[in-house]
Amino acid sequence: MITNESYVPGLAGVIASETAISLLDTEKEKIVIRGYDLIELSQTNSYTDIIHLLLEGELPDLSAKEAMVAQLKNNYDVPDLIFKILELLPKETHPMDGQRTALSALAGHDGNIEDRSSKSNKEKAYQLLGQLPTITVNSYRILKGQAPVYPDPTLSYSANFLYMITGKKPTGLEASIFDRSLLLYSEHEMPNSTFTARVIASTNSDIYGALTGGIASLKGNLHGGANEAVMHLLNEAHSVGHFEKILKQRLANKEKVMGFGHRVYMKRMDPRALIMKESLAELCDLQGDATLLDMCEAGERLMEKEKGLYPNLDYYAAPVYWMLGIPIPLYTPIFFSSRSAGIAAHVIEQHDNNRLFRPRVRYIGKPLS
Amino acid sequence: MITNESYVPGLAGVIASETAISLLDTEKEKIVIRGYDLIELSQTNSYTDIIHLLLEGELPDLSAKEAMVAQLKNNYDVPDLIFKILELLPKETHPMDGQRTALSALAGHDGNIEDRSSKSNKEKAYQLLGQLPTITVNSYRILKGQAPVYPDPTLSYSANFLYMITGKKPTGLEASIFDRSLLLYSEHEMPNSTFTARVIASTNSDIYGALTGGIASLKGNLHGGANEAVMHLLNEAHSVGHFEKILKQRLANKEKVMGFGHRVYMKRMDPRALIMKESLAELCDLQGDATLLDMCEAGERLMEKEKGLYPNLDYYAAPVYWMLGIPIPLYTPIFFSSRSAGIAAHVIEQHDNNRLFRPRVRYIGKPLS
Repeated sequence: MITNESYVPGLAGVIASETAISLLDTEKEKIVIRGYDLIELSQTNSYTDIIHLLLEGELPDLSAKEAMVAQLKNNYDVPDLIFKILELLPKETHPMDGQRTALSALAGHDGNIEDRSSKSNKEKAYQLLGQLPTITVNSYRILKGQAPVYPDPTLSYSANFLYMITGKKPTGLEASIFDRSLLLYSEHEMPNSTFTARVIASTNSDIYGALTGGIASLKGNLHGGANEAVMHLLNEAHSVGHFEKILKQRLANKEKVMGFGHRVYMKRMDPRALIMKESLAELCDLQGDATLLDMCEAGERLMEKEKGLYPNLDYYAAPVYWMLGIPIPLYTPIFFSSRSAGIAAHVIEQHDNNRLFRPRVRYIGKPLS
Repeated sequence: MITNESYVPGLAGVIASETAISLLDTEKEKIVIRGYDLIELSQTNSYTDIIHLLLEGELPDLSAKEAMVAQLKNNYDVPDLIFKILELLPKETHPMDGQRTALSALAGHDGNIEDRSSKSNKEKAYQLLGQLPTITVNSYRILKGQAPVYPDPTLSYSANFLYMITGKKPTGLEASIFDRSLLLYSEHEMPNSTFTARVIASTNSDIYGALTGGIASLKGNLHGGANEAVMHLLNEAHSVGHFEKILKQRLANKEKVMGFGHRVYMKRMDPRALIMKESLAELCDLQGDATLLDMCEAGERLMEKEKGLYPNLDYYAAPVYWMLGIPIPLYTPIFFSSRSAGIAAHVIEQHDNNRLFRPRVRYIGKPLS
């Protein structure tokens, strides 16, 4: 039965799936999403366009886009029980655990939950993508003892999301920078959370379970939690000089510095980080305070020089979220909300052409006595 | 970066982890658990012994066993909020989704949730293994509109679990057969749910998230749901003749028959199924009705003759659970409750020697335009 005796820790470089959704093309240094370059898309398209691209396989024309945005907005409402459940959770609950519990609970509301067809999976995906901003923001707010906020369907998808987070209507620039961050986070081939979701879906389990597992995965600080760790570090440092000192200390102690390096990119900066760096510069310009940009650039130079490591998306998304007024504990839940577009596409693909994931082990325990 | 260009769907035969916990030794045809033969253990030891073996690496002596059982019983209580959350869920919620939501919600109660040390993980594991019977039974009961039941610490672990399920104190034989089923379900190398949990834990996420993902995985009918499917089929058939007819029809229609075959065993019956078959014979003897045993044996002969397929554990566990008076929707949640002993051991092992799971893909989508 064992066809491959070689053991690669973490399945690094092992091909786990065939997919038509995306590829990190390390030769061409492109993030390919259904034939498009994600970075080019970030200059011309919105996050909701990418939802359509991921789920339908093509960018929407104007009428398809209008229909899809209307469908998302029709799904903004979240059953009351979700708020009630969030109110019952201990106030110490991690926002990712609140988001996970809420999404898990939603499964019981789906009268068609046993349908694994593409059509039904897509309907569930649009429903969940409509609901996730409300769930994401309120799982944070209610755990903080704040009153729930409700979506404003007169705003665009991303403007509404940011409005629910901050409580104030964002400017065009703010909404467009936030939208770009969602687009950049939307899909990234086979990171741990997407892999988790495909593994779960392969038992013929449903999209709610697959996404629940994805949240659990993204919670870990080796995956989604990195953006929050970056911001805490920047806040701890407060100045360029102190930031450099902290980074050097961490390197001397052989501690991992979050926000740098990535299993797949190796020789240059994550191209998504570059886009967020531009957005950070725009926000610094607007607010007349370049401290965060200066700190990040200093850290970038230092890490390249000392370790040959380059920033990943989290490194520049974190200060952008900070300058947009987003509370740090929401960074990872927002990342998940955005990424569920990609994960949903992977669940649909897995169900459409399924093979149960069931690997083997190398046993290094006591021999049979 | 890609070290292995060969793509094996479902990672069949691919080694995903080194482990000292267990091995399906297909050459010796043994299920090895930390150096012991699981089938031999099922003749001499109890499920709680196996919990100790899985988590501590060795079978307990008498005083270690007493201390561990006391620790499990000290953890029987479940916070009230779990019952309240279950009461809020729609009555149509699948019991696995109820169990998943309840376990997800528990995370917020753990004041030490960020500790990934072996010691802390073991404490969490004993706590969850103490709580899981109460959560499992009540997620089913409350969703059915029934009043919650509470554990009886004067009974053994398995007798209490069965008592909560059926509402009556089990006989010694019933408790011991149920205990044996838990033992047989406790650990099985790297099935999808255990793999899911290790993948999640590898992001440095916590045991609650890993187990939540495990429930989502086990819900799928290609994994945990099989025992329920078997029982529905047996109930639909009602007689040997009709059962054979249904099986032949399914084979003619090229439909999958649940309860037969397994990715790893190929050439003979799952040895765990043999043990459950013996238990089924005992229960049939006692109740003076051999219908289920006769049906199962007829199905076994037919499937071997027609397809060369042999029963797996689910095939014989299902009628055993039926004869013990266990409601069918609880079969998979009970399987999970038992298996969480093994999964917890895997999470601890993953955290103790971690490498992030992050495989690659073969891209078969549109080329970059």
